[in-house]
Amino acid sequence: MSQFHQKCLEHPISVWDKILNHDFLTMTAEGNIPDKTFKIWMQQDYLFVRDSIPFVAILLAKSPVQYRSNFVQILSVLDQELGLFRKNAEAHGVDLKNIIPSPTCEAYNQYLMNVAYRGSFVEGFTALYAAEKAYLDSWMQVKNHQKAESPWQEFINNWTSQEFQQYVEWLATTLDELVEGKSESELEDLKELFLKIAKYEYLFWEMAVKEEEWPV
Amino acid sequence: MSQFHQKCLEHPISVWDKILNHDFLTMTAEGNIPDKTFKIWMQQDYLFVRDSIPFVAILLAKSPVQYRSNFVQILSVLDQELGLFRKNAEAHGVDLKNIIPSPTCEAYNQYLMNVAYRGSFVEGFTALYAAEKAYLDSWMQVKNHQKAESPWQEFINNWTSQEFQQYVEWLATTLDELVEGKSESELEDLKELFLKIAKYEYLFWEMAVKEEEWPV
Amino acid sequence: MSQFHQKCLEHPISVWDKILNHDFLTMTAEGNIPDKTFKIWMQQDYLFVRDSIPFVAILLAKSPVQYRSNFVQILSVLDQELGLFRKNAEAHGVDLKNIIPSPTCEAYNQYLMNVAYRGSFVEGFTALYAAEKAYLDSWMQVKNHQKAESPWQEFINNWTSQEFQQYVEWLATTLDELVEGKSESELEDLKELFLKIAKYEYLFWEMAVKEEEWPV
Amino acid sequence: MSQFHQKCLEHPISVWDKILNHDFLTMTAEGNIPDKTFKIWMQQDYLFVRDSIPFVAILLAKSPVQYRSNFVQILSVLDQELGLFRKNAEAHGVDLKNIIPSPTCEAYNQYLMNVAYRGSFVEGFTALYAAEKAYLDSWMQVKNHQKAESPWQEFINNWTSQEFQQYVEWLATTLDELVEGKSESELEDLKELFLKIAKYEYLFWEMAVKEEEWPV
Repeated sequence: MSQFHQKCLEHPISVWDKILNHDFLTMTAEGNIPDKTFKIWMQQDYLFVRDSIPFVAILLAKSPVQYRSNFVQILSVLDQELGLFRKNAEAHGVDLKNIIPSPTCEAYNQYLMNVAYRGSFVEGFTALYAAEKAYLDSWMQVKNHQKAESPWQEFINNWTSQEFQQYVEWLATTLDELVEGKSESELEDLKELFLKIAKYEYLFWEMAVKEEEWPV
Repeated sequence: MSQFHQKCLEHPISVWDKILNHDFLTMTAEGNIPDKTFKIWMQQDYLFVRDSIPFVAILLAKSPVQYRSNFVQILSVLDQELGLFRKNAEAHGVDLKNIIPSPTCEAYNQYLMNVAYRGSFVEGFTALYAAEKAYLDSWMQVKNHQKAESPWQEFINNWTSQEFQQYVEWLATTLDELVEGKSESELEDLKELFLKIAKYEYLFWEMAVKEEEWPV
Repeated sequence: MSQFHQKCLEHPISVWDKILNHDFLTMTAEGNIPDKTFKIWMQQDYLFVRDSIPFVAILLAKSPVQYRSNFVQILSVLDQELGLFRKNAEAHGVDLKNIIPSPTCEAYNQYLMNVAYRGSFVEGFTALYAAEKAYLDSWMQVKNHQKAESPWQEFINNWTSQEFQQYVEWLATTLDELVEGKSESELEDLKELFLKIAKYEYLFWEMAVKEEEWPV
Repeated sequence: MSQFHQKCLEHPISVWDKILNHDFLTMTAEGNIPDKTFKIWMQQDYLFVRDSIPFVAILLAKSPVQYRSNFVQILSVLDQELGLFRKNAEAHGVDLKNIIPSPTCEAYNQYLMNVAYRGSFVEGFTALYAAEKAYLDSWMQVKNHQKAESPWQEFINNWTSQEFQQYVEWLATTLDELVEGKSESELEDLKELFLKIAKYEYLFWEMAVKEEEWPV
């Protein structure tokens, strides 16, 4: 019988497929993604990671004592990840200063913040797992289909590294622990939440490819 | 010299113009808005008002003692406003049960929630003023250009009533009180916040007219 | 088999007994409570009720849709309750302006706020039920042992009225609904939370009788 | 003219004096503090540090972008500080598992949490500065009056180390930056907040010496 973290993925299987087969990832793997597209993503994901720190911080504040050190560690990793963006931005001439979040980037971040503030710890945790699992699977998809080194290799390597895999594995295992004894209706709600995050992940790739901007 | 609440409006004047001249309002005034368009708005605004209650509640929790009764009152009015939606939904055969927030409705609500949770009281208050002022001006625009009674007259009347005008007037006056002694840079940030709300208000009308849906 | 809301009371039975048999209540029932003692309580409970409004507001923000109107109603009642304090304060010459919360009053209020902010909705709801149930039982104890009209009769009547009884009944019934499907370990945690509130209720009566003050 | 962080200390000078001259510190410096007293403090301060992590996390979530890395760093230091407690607890046979926060420890922690949740970033920051400054000055007082090595030397060294001094210095400088342009009335409120933290610091030493327990 599959664990809860696996059941989360059964549910939104078609959305997950659409994520993994999104043009952004395919083009990155094939090496023909337009520079502009990748750079838009880099700017927006920089803002997204930056504003994930408050999200994880709110989760830490609600965390049971036994997971607090893990969350402190997650915050450190996110903070270092910003360095990865800055280094690559400099190397590729990408401005990370005079940028604002696109509607989708902002909506996704605010959604996470709200889950963290209003939801229970396990709800916030499910959202975190969903977002990180989407990144692991997305970049694994790229890595597995790469034919040549990419100019964006450091990003590909970052979210396919063993450390990142282990972290997502820890999230999965811990989620299974956290939901022990939960009622079916609670589990259904968590699966809905996982699905919602999957939708935002899809929209995030869309945003980059479509060069989304504020209409006013 | 103009008061702060007036300065808020000088800043995003072009966005405000776009709001007031939006097709949705023009068509509602002229009586030729498609039923489907208005009904989509009704569903989404019902969800928006419903989820504004948590926003105002978070503000109440941060409110200085002297304004708490006002916020309790605002919550009562919002709760009653939901009755207006239910009554009109029934009269016009609009489903208010099996609906979910559109991306824009959700993004706007989550944005407000975040301002309330993370921001200071005056930031949340500015957001509330911006949202209510946009509604007052928008529906006044409709009312002033109406040539005939509308099937949606109760909505038009609701946000142009004397009570609503007085409420928005109270928000304006109180905002001016709250910003006394604030530095220029703080005032600039509040004006940016006002502008952001204006953008979301514009997007909300767009959503209804374009029948926005989740792409996945 | 007893309902969950009843099980909450089995657990801290000795603390509950100590609350109901506290000198403050006994003296109030017998009519020999020193004026100064009652007035200290009146000042501190005024501050407590006032600062319960943010607590209930945070709960409202986390409330499932179906209970939001109830919470808006609870906020109105709390706001009106402050009027009861003001009216009696004026009649009895009690200052409600130049007062600060005692250490116990502050600690209790902050505890509630934290449960609301950090805890899940059902945790906050359990705390609310515990606090209101303690008040109902405490003042019922007074009312049932009264031999004569009290100068503080309006307070006694307020928390023994039929409206208040029905409200506490609603809290009990709703709590039972909310915990359906919860695991034993979750229920144990909620009972611990109920017990903690009971302890704070006891400390609150102690504070009044001992005329607690800040030592520095 | 003195900086704001210095003005904070002028205000509650008598409370600060009482902190620095508290029996707990004097006895620790002189080497005659009862083992039991120090161990009670160790248990309660362990819980206090542990539950300061959520406090700092909430602050991080509200922090302007430029200070977020600092807060991630502060969280790491607090997490490591728990190791100092565990190590010394083991060496001295102190139980850190089966303990609960005393009323004062709990009240202080909840107070901080509330400032972080409800207050603005600068309010939370002021509270953090006050708490850390109190620890620096308290343990410096001990260090400066020590005649011999203490069995609790690692604690004394921890909060008098150069790293800790620099951290508190950074808090002071940053607070001065943060209050630039604030009105007199806002500064007064922040000084009140500083004073309140000072009171809790005093109560915390009192708690240890008086072996405070829950009366029920």
